[in-house]
Amino acid sequence: MPVKTERISIKSKGHSDVLDITARLEDAVSGSGLKNGVATAFVIGSTAALSTIEYEPGLVHDIVVALEKVAPKRGEYKHHERWNDDNGHSHVRATLMGPSLVIPFVQKKLTLGTWQQVVLIDFDTQPRQREVVIQMIGE
Amino acid sequence: MPVKTERISIKSKGHSDVLDITARLEDAVSGSGLKNGVATAFVIGSTAALSTIEYEPGLVHDIVVALEKVAPKRGEYKHHERWNDDNGHSHVRATLMGPSLVIPFVQKKLTLGTWQQVVLIDFDTQPRQREVVIQMIGE
Amino acid sequence: MPVKTERISIKSKGHSDVLDITARLEDAVSGSGLKNGVATAFVIGSTAALSTIEYEPGLVHDIVVALEKVAPKRGEYKHHERWNDDNGHSHVRATLMGPSLVIPFVQKKLTLGTWQQVVLIDFDTQPRQREVVIQMIGE
Repeated sequence: MPVKTERISIKSKGHSDVLDITARLEDAVSGSGLKNGVATAFVIGSTAALSTIEYEPGLVHDIVVALEKVAPKRGEYKHHERWNDDNGHSHVRATLMGPSLVIPFVQKKLTLGTWQQVVLIDFDTQPRQREVVIQMIGE
Repeated sequence: MPVKTERISIKSKGHSDVLDITARLEDAVSGSGLKNGVATAFVIGSTAALSTIEYEPGLVHDIVVALEKVAPKRGEYKHHERWNDDNGHSHVRATLMGPSLVIPFVQKKLTLGTWQQVVLIDFDTQPRQREVVIQMIGE
Repeated sequence: MPVKTERISIKSKGHSDVLDITARLEDAVSGSGLKNGVATAFVIGSTAALSTIEYEPGLVHDIVVALEKVAPKRGEYKHHERWNDDNGHSHVRATLMGPSLVIPFVQKKLTLGTWQQVVLIDFDTQPRQREVVIQMIGE
């Protein structure tokens, strides 16, 4: 039972850009040669997160509205004092949501629902080239 | 080292119904034939989430109060405009909490604390039959 | 492909103490004898959580400010009525953030970013000795 590791690179606009990466994960799973197992996705960095969502523009808007209540963009952050930075809210949102997502696959297919897509949310305050590690373990 | 996949079905009432699924996971682990490894639970769909909690009625109430602040049931959601739907808050809560939970098991037992139960929270606005994939990898 | 399980013990001050446990995970991975695979960290108990953060005092403060909005320390919780307890907010914060974190490792190194540390946040209202299970599966 081998381990297969891929690293994908995704261009984001930042500012809570929500990007559908489902097809990238599906490609990684189908290219792994494995039939059944678990796919771990992990975003490198401390201002982005992974989750699932019904990927449509309405919800992409709604999720950011909710996070704005918890960690507002124009709030006051001690992090800004330290680095003279402007992305305190980006870090807080990323830590609350978390960097890892784990999805089983069966018969080479991820066990996602029809209206359930995998998304990378980039909370940083500038465009970024994001790296996501996708690792498959199985048989 | 094999992969064992089970799919369990759970009836929920929706409306942020919090359901204790610990025994279902324990059964999956003990029935897998594996001694040590990792159990991944993944809920299919975009309006439900998994986590752990001390499962008692007080906290089951308190967790919903907290989520109501972030994604209120009677809030305004762009998602509603798209589908003439009423479950924007369900999607937002599910995406914030996440669909996957990963728990190691040792000597056929999940490494949960005494007051730590595994829960499925169904945020949708109607009763649902929920599917959770449980996958064990180990030795 | 073996499974390696470690259990680490960490002294916390409680009250949303944010503790950097990156070095403990790195030690577990390098001591496992495995080269590539996935490291699952799981905190035992229902009043603590795991995530990643840029570990600096500013953000350690900012994350607690955000959680205070969702589950305030001096809020009213049904959990208190049940046990005459004072840690309702601790449970709610822990459940929202989740107890598990999964990180791939490649060539014996966790795929963390430079400014991305693994943290245990102990939300309980007293000092605790915390147990975290770290399990490596790989090759």
